[in-house]
Amino acid sequence: MADTDSTVVPGPVQLNGAHINGDRLSARLEALAEIGAIDGGGCARLALTDEDRAGRDLVMTWMRDLDLDVRVDAIGNVIAQWGDAGAAPVMAGSHIDTVRTGGRYDGNLGVLAGLEVIETAIESGLRPQRPLAVAFFTNEEGSRFSPDMLGSLTYVGGLPIEEALDITGIDGATVGDELRRIGYVGPHPCPGPAPHAYVELHIEQGPVLEAHGIDIGVVESVQGISWQELTIEGQANHAGTTPMTMRHDAGYAAAAVAAFVRQLALKIGPPQVGTVGSLRLHPDLVNVVAARAKLTVDLRNTDDGVLADAEQQLATFLAQLAVDEGVLATCRPLARFAPVTFDPQVVGLVEAAAHRLGRSTMRLPSGAGHDAQMLARVCPSGMVFVPSVAGISHNPAEYTAPDDLAAGADVLLHVMLELAGTAELSP
Amino acid sequence: MADTDSTVVPGPVQLNGAHINGDRLSARLEALAEIGAIDGGGCARLALTDEDRAGRDLVMTWMRDLDLDVRVDAIGNVIAQWGDAGAAPVMAGSHIDTVRTGGRYDGNLGVLAGLEVIETAIESGLRPQRPLAVAFFTNEEGSRFSPDMLGSLTYVGGLPIEEALDITGIDGATVGDELRRIGYVGPHPCPGPAPHAYVELHIEQGPVLEAHGIDIGVVESVQGISWQELTIEGQANHAGTTPMTMRHDAGYAAAAVAAFVRQLALKIGPPQVGTVGSLRLHPDLVNVVAARAKLTVDLRNTDDGVLADAEQQLATFLAQLAVDEGVLATCRPLARFAPVTFDPQVVGLVEAAAHRLGRSTMRLPSGAGHDAQMLARVCPSGMVFVPSVAGISHNPAEYTAPDDLAAGADVLLHVMLELAGTAELSP
Repeated sequence: MADTDSTVVPGPVQLNGAHINGDRLSARLEALAEIGAIDGGGCARLALTDEDRAGRDLVMTWMRDLDLDVRVDAIGNVIAQWGDAGAAPVMAGSHIDTVRTGGRYDGNLGVLAGLEVIETAIESGLRPQRPLAVAFFTNEEGSRFSPDMLGSLTYVGGLPIEEALDITGIDGATVGDELRRIGYVGPHPCPGPAPHAYVELHIEQGPVLEAHGIDIGVVESVQGISWQELTIEGQANHAGTTPMTMRHDAGYAAAAVAAFVRQLALKIGPPQVGTVGSLRLHPDLVNVVAARAKLTVDLRNTDDGVLADAEQQLATFLAQLAVDEGVLATCRPLARFAPVTFDPQVVGLVEAAAHRLGRSTMRLPSGAGHDAQMLARVCPSGMVFVPSVAGISHNPAEYTAPDDLAAGADVLLHVMLELAGTAELSP
Repeated sequence: MADTDSTVVPGPVQLNGAHINGDRLSARLEALAEIGAIDGGGCARLALTDEDRAGRDLVMTWMRDLDLDVRVDAIGNVIAQWGDAGAAPVMAGSHIDTVRTGGRYDGNLGVLAGLEVIETAIESGLRPQRPLAVAFFTNEEGSRFSPDMLGSLTYVGGLPIEEALDITGIDGATVGDELRRIGYVGPHPCPGPAPHAYVELHIEQGPVLEAHGIDIGVVESVQGISWQELTIEGQANHAGTTPMTMRHDAGYAAAAVAAFVRQLALKIGPPQVGTVGSLRLHPDLVNVVAARAKLTVDLRNTDDGVLADAEQQLATFLAQLAVDEGVLATCRPLARFAPVTFDPQVVGLVEAAAHRLGRSTMRLPSGAGHDAQMLARVCPSGMVFVPSVAGISHNPAEYTAPDDLAAGADVLLHVMLELAGTAELSP
């Protein structure tokens, strides 16, 4: 089968039984986790801090040990490539920055598994038609600089590099200054060249795979996200002396919104989710009807039309509630990302590779944002999920079993080599 | 009609057209409000502080100016009596301590109106068969020392004086030390002698009288109060990656409780009220399902059986919610006061006096606690309410119009003199 622009997959792969080295992958995850280690086995490597620099330096060392072509771009993304530089590579990637109380798998797994895939290909004497590459993108978490997924967004041309460098973080430092400080302003321009395809291995960060006893999650899409902050202004009153029918209770109104969000998500059905994660009352006293409430609403769906409809239903409910309770309700949008659908061919390759490797699969959307959704703007992209124990993430207790890590990396190996057209086998 | 033990009211009163002096009452309220004055026209005279001492000193001066017999007891209650010390007096009273952001009427009105009644009786040459007395009780608000209504509770024997003096306040000082510091440890013992009857004039602190266009509230009872703190332990999870059916959302559970409390109060109907005034989530982030919620529930009713049933219904709801949502819900009682019913004869006197004075009335319960509910343990007691503009209290904006203040004080005058058997008139 010819490798044309319209065909992502050059043909069937004969890998001669090659497998990634799970022990090596786990050892690198452990070594990286020692940098910025925090109590409970987690990591704190906020983007562009000294800890992030130390993590970057370590991963760069491993990349160079394999004689890869390592490039740093203007936003500090690092891309290491193996093979003929004349063709667009098949790229793996993710991030190595963490939240303040992060685990050791989120992001790191996708980067180190990509490195492991390349090392396995080299060791196995495989000769893909296209180069293989592995990238780590700057500030995926967004814990220090907003927006999240900043490096991959800038890489695909979604944000001008000048604007990206001017972003000020929670500590007052700018992206540009911090990149210079840690020595990660690279010569390669942003936006960067589009890969041939992009595949990201990631922990699920949710409980679905574990609950269903499934090895590999075949990620079809990334949910669209709607974040709103609602402010409800009522009237402070004595909780003993104010009859129920004469109240303008901002606390009750906030609770009614939270209860409605639950009902709305259940009524729409999966994959719709809805969460009121933050809710604050004023004056917040046992015997005073609340004068004011501030709460957030997080709505997500893979279908942008359904998500917009959910937003509309919330707005309608809120307007009626304001009339019924005699309160003033205002809404401030905090974030709005459209859903992303991954390339069906890449999705199919992930599923087929997992089955070939004897792994059970289920298709599911990603509830969290990932660099892959940015790369999907410029090339066929997909993701592989492995189970998160108890669905715990952004927490030192984040854990994925070594066998699951290896299984995911093996699926990544198969998918990348298929995408890269691995026709020749080692002797 | 003979004044026997079983008859509170000696007979009909002929007051010869006597009225309290509204200007003098308002002037004293203003003068007292200058002590501990805060922005917005309110007062901060927390119990047993320097400001409270200054307020006490001023009111004592006014009491002595009328040659009253002024007594201070072991808990710092101050009682001023006019007339024959051989019989139990008809007592008016309230408190002059305030919350930190208090108004100028709450408590002060009842004390200064009692003083005004005595001054009016003296000026008018009235000769009641029983003495008249006016009291201010220590630490009614409970803002500095818990429990509230401490002085009147101790006066009626509800708390041993030794325990009362040992109470430590929010700033670490004890009641006993602070009483000594401000010079208000009196020689008269606690519990003190029971009055013949007790009547307290107070602002409503609620919106009912104003909303109905009524001059005088005839208080039949004080609501029982049930305060509980609920703690709900769920599981923190990613708001994007956790399906709705796999959540253990402490935030949703707290909201469901708040919505239930509203429904419960409406279902039971007036005078039942129910309030969730305080609600806190942890970690309180937009994209994290709450792991923990702490909220308070304030339930009140004049019928103790109905109140207990409301508590039971809440407990049943909470138990089912915990099962449904997979959360752990625990409950800590914060306060529980049984309802108090005022003496029907005193209630009837208040109503009749208001009508005689050409004032509109309605019977209602008190939603807040008052010293009168403590005195009701030892003598026939009742209360007179005057309207609070917009129902606002515990706030510098607390306001009652001068005409309403005077109307309430006139009702107090009539009721006290009837209770005291004012058979003789001035020439």
